[in-house]
Amino acid sequence: MSSQKVFKPPKGMQDIPPDEMAIREWVYDKIKQVFRNYGVKLVETTFVEEFQTLAAKSGPDIKEEIYYFKDKSGRELGLRFDLTVGIARLVANNPQWPIPLRLGAISCMWRYDQPGYGRRRWFYQWNVEYLGEKSVYADVEAIALGIDVFLSFNYNQFIVKIGHRQIAEHILLANGAPESKIPDLLRIIDKFQKLTEDQLIAEFAKYGVTKEQFFQIKSALRKGKEELLDYIEQTYQNNTKILNAVNELRDAYHALKSLKKEQFIEIDLSIVRGIGYYTGIVWEAYDLKDPQAGSIFGGGRYDSLVGLYGPRQLPATGLAGGIERLLIVLKQHNLIPPYVSAKPAVFVANIKIPIHNILPIVQELRNANIPTIYNISGWKIKKALSYANNENINYVLIIGEQELKNKEVTVKVMNQAKEVKIPQSELISFLKMQIKSNT
Amino acid sequence: MSSQKVFKPPKGMQDIPPDEMAIREWVYDKIKQVFRNYGVKLVETTFVEEFQTLAAKSGPDIKEEIYYFKDKSGRELGLRFDLTVGIARLVANNPQWPIPLRLGAISCMWRYDQPGYGRRRWFYQWNVEYLGEKSVYADVEAIALGIDVFLSFNYNQFIVKIGHRQIAEHILLANGAPESKIPDLLRIIDKFQKLTEDQLIAEFAKYGVTKEQFFQIKSALRKGKEELLDYIEQTYQNNTKILNAVNELRDAYHALKSLKKEQFIEIDLSIVRGIGYYTGIVWEAYDLKDPQAGSIFGGGRYDSLVGLYGPRQLPATGLAGGIERLLIVLKQHNLIPPYVSAKPAVFVANIKIPIHNILPIVQELRNANIPTIYNISGWKIKKALSYANNENINYVLIIGEQELKNKEVTVKVMNQAKEVKIPQSELISFLKMQIKSNT
Repeated sequence: MSSQKVFKPPKGMQDIPPDEMAIREWVYDKIKQVFRNYGVKLVETTFVEEFQTLAAKSGPDIKEEIYYFKDKSGRELGLRFDLTVGIARLVANNPQWPIPLRLGAISCMWRYDQPGYGRRRWFYQWNVEYLGEKSVYADVEAIALGIDVFLSFNYNQFIVKIGHRQIAEHILLANGAPESKIPDLLRIIDKFQKLTEDQLIAEFAKYGVTKEQFFQIKSALRKGKEELLDYIEQTYQNNTKILNAVNELRDAYHALKSLKKEQFIEIDLSIVRGIGYYTGIVWEAYDLKDPQAGSIFGGGRYDSLVGLYGPRQLPATGLAGGIERLLIVLKQHNLIPPYVSAKPAVFVANIKIPIHNILPIVQELRNANIPTIYNISGWKIKKALSYANNENINYVLIIGEQELKNKEVTVKVMNQAKEVKIPQSELISFLKMQIKSNT
Repeated sequence: MSSQKVFKPPKGMQDIPPDEMAIREWVYDKIKQVFRNYGVKLVETTFVEEFQTLAAKSGPDIKEEIYYFKDKSGRELGLRFDLTVGIARLVANNPQWPIPLRLGAISCMWRYDQPGYGRRRWFYQWNVEYLGEKSVYADVEAIALGIDVFLSFNYNQFIVKIGHRQIAEHILLANGAPESKIPDLLRIIDKFQKLTEDQLIAEFAKYGVTKEQFFQIKSALRKGKEELLDYIEQTYQNNTKILNAVNELRDAYHALKSLKKEQFIEIDLSIVRGIGYYTGIVWEAYDLKDPQAGSIFGGGRYDSLVGLYGPRQLPATGLAGGIERLLIVLKQHNLIPPYVSAKPAVFVANIKIPIHNILPIVQELRNANIPTIYNISGWKIKKALSYANNENINYVLIIGEQELKNKEVTVKVMNQAKEVKIPQSELISFLKMQIKSNT
């Protein structure tokens, strides 16, 4: 009956085994707690979308980058490539929901690309969207939430770089960039850190921007604290579009300061995000030790997307971070505590008595929420102890005739190599105290 | 920019909106707690499987019942139709994991069938598998866990009917059924409750079983408490295969009794489960008020599946229950408490002061894990109160010049229509006490 053939998950779609899943559950729970604290409500939209829904956001060419297929009735479908599309579609179809909406998801998606380091074709993101609110405080909420997610893991070695799409666009226009070339130039600015100055000058020249103009642009699209905004205001004091956007960014900065987030943010006007659909404030978070690894969350305002999915045109802003990337960062910073594991606390072993006799105790422990397994394989005590040892189960309860008669239990505390006899009536409080002091 | 076109989820794949998601999260958390108590470790296997993996369990005809497609390199893939396939494949490929394994999942799957009442093409199950253990205590654990999942919701209006595939098979054989027709006859027995006696006699006759033989079979394959097993033993006292299976079932029954589960179980030898792959004890749970709605969990022993996926031949047993079905049952029995909701606890409103001034208080509340939103839209107080009222947010904090100066906060308790002034320094303890006494 047994097969010599090897059955594997499809390429780029690794399973999540128990040890990793325990860590993920710990991570998901912490993110969900922050969502709750911010009044963000979880949703789960369908993982399989009609292809036209996916194409509405990204154009029909997206077909090449996703899992696209037809069902048996010829319906064109696709596996979703992000969490924003589904949420935007859901909100567009529920006009009765009062705005502003605070919606979040922690879930998975698929992309048909070449899986690289830390990249999979099946991957998870945590995601939050504020819909129906044009004020900058929605952007502030998204950024503050992202920071509080990281702080909930005691992770503080990161910086959130905040820019503004409108500032970048209008500085380009004010310095001679042709309006039709703005999307191309924003894509180049998105690579500011990756290209040399000579490369940048050459790239800009392709779109009719002179070297002098490039240096004007570069001196504006840089990073700094609040003084950078003063500089932009002075330099472009007659450009109301730039001044309005600067005011918005200043408000966001002040609000984040009031929310005690100043040490985690900086203004970086070269942050524009490559994708076309952002319309206002945008941001990306980077690890301080390993900024080259790319952003650990990113987001921004996108005021035109929801209207694509229905009659309800809503301004929106949101943020997404990769779960796999977050796991790597938490490991690198040694922030996953050893108690995060899927192991049960207790193994109950019987010595020379029928297994039925130990089951009432097993049930009592479980009723008290003490994770407990027992000797379902009928092992001798030596094998049971070695299993408990390998599996890092810290309490082995031994029950034999003597213990049954005396209504007591022998408890082996594995990490202290000690053995104590405890009356059955005190067993639960003894174990609860022990487990608490061990985590 | 806004679209008149309606974008919907694909047929049978309804989104999960915030209110339902809050209930689901509550349900998932309770199931996970029971999993932990039983030492069951969560896994998540890939949702997209190679088609050969899916076909290995169910044969190539399964293609008609699932979402099947090819990726861009011609790889044959399919969306999984259950959670067992992935877990069996995962275990077969990890021979280093010590057995017995206790693995669980709460996740989704897809079937391309006509969605009926309470059925979707995209649906969720809770699932537990015990792998590598041939003893009946693995079956006992799965059944006890299923019962404790229900009890964790204070749901106790159900019965778990336990049968044994070997007993049914060998009683059929002992009463003249031809060996080659056993799978067909088991499928008829699976419909015992749905067919009339005349229909059953006619069906059995098709496979060469006489009316007299049918009544012999019927008098054995019925339900009862332990006495039914005595009757079978007496009737088939020379049939060692039946006697062995009866012994196993008796052991299971005794163990479940020791685990305080007797009131929730009965023996029902007509429970055989339709699908071919079960090999031993099998069971199905039914709601007492609405048994016609079908089983609310089901499972059994399947000792031949894991070996299909790799060189590791492991005995196994497991159980699955539908999440959507469980939600219906919990609603019918009125077991979802009103406090299960995604609503935040607190709305902070500013009156005639800049919004920045209220943000430090917002942050303090969030740091104390009090779910808090604030006036990001710059509403007047009347609008803020009406929003809080509609959204069932119970505490509206009002901060104006007076409150700022006196370092206090006006708290409107909506469900008591009262208003109190609280010093800022006592705000968190006041709210924590209030929220606690309200849930």
